Amino acid sequence: GIEYGDMQLICDAYDYMGRTLGLDEEAMADVFDTWNRGRLSSYLIEITGHILRTPDQDGVPLVRRILDRAGQKGTGKWTVVNGLEQGVPLTLIGEAVFARFLSAMKEQRVRAAGLLTGPDPAPPPGDPAPLLADLENGLYGAKIVSNGQGYLLMQAAAGRYGWNLDYGGIALMWRGGCIIRSVFLADIRQAFLDDPGLDNLLLAPFFRNALSAVEAGWRRCAARALTAGVPVPALAAGLTFYDGLRSQRLPANLLQAQRDYFGAHTYERVDREQGQFFHTDWSGAS
Amino acid sequence: GIEYGDMQLICDAYDYMGRTLGLDEEAMADVFDTWNRGRLSSYLIEITGHILRTPDQDGVPLVRRILDRAGQKGTGKWTVVNGLEQGVPLTLIGEAVFARFLSAMKEQRVRAAGLLTGPDPAPPPGDPAPLLADLENGLYGAKIVSNGQGYLLMQAAAGRYGWNLDYGGIALMWRGGCIIRSVFLADIRQAFLDDPGLDNLLLAPFFRNALSAVEAGWRRCAARALTAGVPVPALAAGLTFYDGLRSQRLPANLLQAQRDYFGAHTYERVDREQGQFFHTDWSGAS
Repeated sequence: GIEYGDMQLICDAYDYMGRTLGLDEEAMADVFDTWNRGRLSSYLIEITGHILRTPDQDGVPLVRRILDRAGQKGTGKWTVVNGLEQGVPLTLIGEAVFARFLSAMKEQRVRAAGLLTGPDPAPPPGDPAPLLADLENGLYGAKIVSNGQGYLLMQAAAGRYGWNLDYGGIALMWRGGCIIRSVFLADIRQAFLDDPGLDNLLLAPFFRNALSAVEAGWRRCAARALTAGVPVPALAAGLTFYDGLRSQRLPANLLQAQRDYFGAHTYERVDREQGQFFHTDWSGAS
Repeated sequence: GIEYGDMQLICDAYDYMGRTLGLDEEAMADVFDTWNRGRLSSYLIEITGHILRTPDQDGVPLVRRILDRAGQKGTGKWTVVNGLEQGVPLTLIGEAVFARFLSAMKEQRVRAAGLLTGPDPAPPPGDPAPLLADLENGLYGAKIVSNGQGYLLMQAAAGRYGWNLDYGGIALMWRGGCIIRSVFLADIRQAFLDDPGLDNLLLAPFFRNALSAVEAGWRRCAARALTAGVPVPALAAGLTFYDGLRSQRLPANLLQAQRDYFGAHTYERVDREQGQFFHTDWSGAS
């Protein structure tokens, strides 16, 4: 599931660079090579640079000739079904799985492209460097969410089935040869070494400091993509998850009122102990 | 599933009005009452106005006292599991289900609120009218996506199981007394009367014209929410779905190249007939 998330994030970045910044494959390969020398350094970032530099027989970048219908073996789907069954909000990983489904609806997309309108393509920016810095920030922040959601699922399953999982050791094992191998996994391992009781990766000191450092650029990048009409589903879902997690109050109070209104499902109150349930005759009260 | 989507969209709008525009419950109730006289007119919009006007015993709006942990009976979860099993991209409905899960993680959210940073609260805007118009546009566009995704699932299931479904009649039946009853359902019914072979609600003339009319305001509203640190997960997921659907080319070509690189999963080409599969020795070629 984390692999699906990390791959879709790279696809979001590639689409953003091509359609919003007007970079060609060679320029994008340079960006991925640069990122691969920093905190995003990973097998997937590295091979993306190789792919973007690989020519077809006539010299045109081969990636342009590949049909944009993604396949899957079902592991991402299986992850999200598990999240749904265990009550874990796998929003970013879910968007990554759904992005493959939407890519497979190629015929409908071709028709829709001629029928559904969007903004005019933005003019290429002057100096792309600040926009690329925002994108790198967004990619890093969303990668923390992708991995953090995967860990939430493991932790929920461990609780439910009574597993005693070595979360740092799992990150270390993935570093050994898995498709998501990266320097990032060493930071995950360290976070669990520092605090074996860590219950949310985003709240570990290393990662929460990183998130605070990247969130402003991440917002600028996501808002620019939505404004420009470039989808970035995983990048945006990562940000709404971040903002949801740090919301002491979410609008679920209204949702509980609606459920009590139409179905007498009752609600709890902030000024009473949890486990006490109340019902209001809303149509009579208002 | 559509009900989950429509309810979360109302919660997104309520959260946006409170945290971005600084409206109180009375002002919000006025907005919902106004919306209930227009194209968003529906049972859920109507009862939201009633809820926001309902006082607690001391006169404070009762909704403020309700705990923001949402419950569920499992029907939304079941919808999204079905979407995953049938390859249907239920992104907005998925975010709505996951939003309930995230709301239930109240203790982690309270901790996270003190640890994860975000932008300073925006100063209250001068005249909220243009921002409320953008929000109404966004809510309407995202409601089309919420319903459109639900219909995509019914259509996929009908194809798989050989069902002969009367899609317009289903909308008519829901108008009869269901929680999502609305004038909107009459427009859905009309779309299927006009074109019984309609395979995507977003592409019906009535709805695609509506989407073209609202998309600019929807973008402004979603970008403003992401910039302000207010989550709006369903509103944003609806927009990325809209932009994905109208993308003739999605970045899934890069994803297929990655899958071929690390797993020899092969790819199809845009310049060859579908069903022909190619493999490249990427590490040797680059």
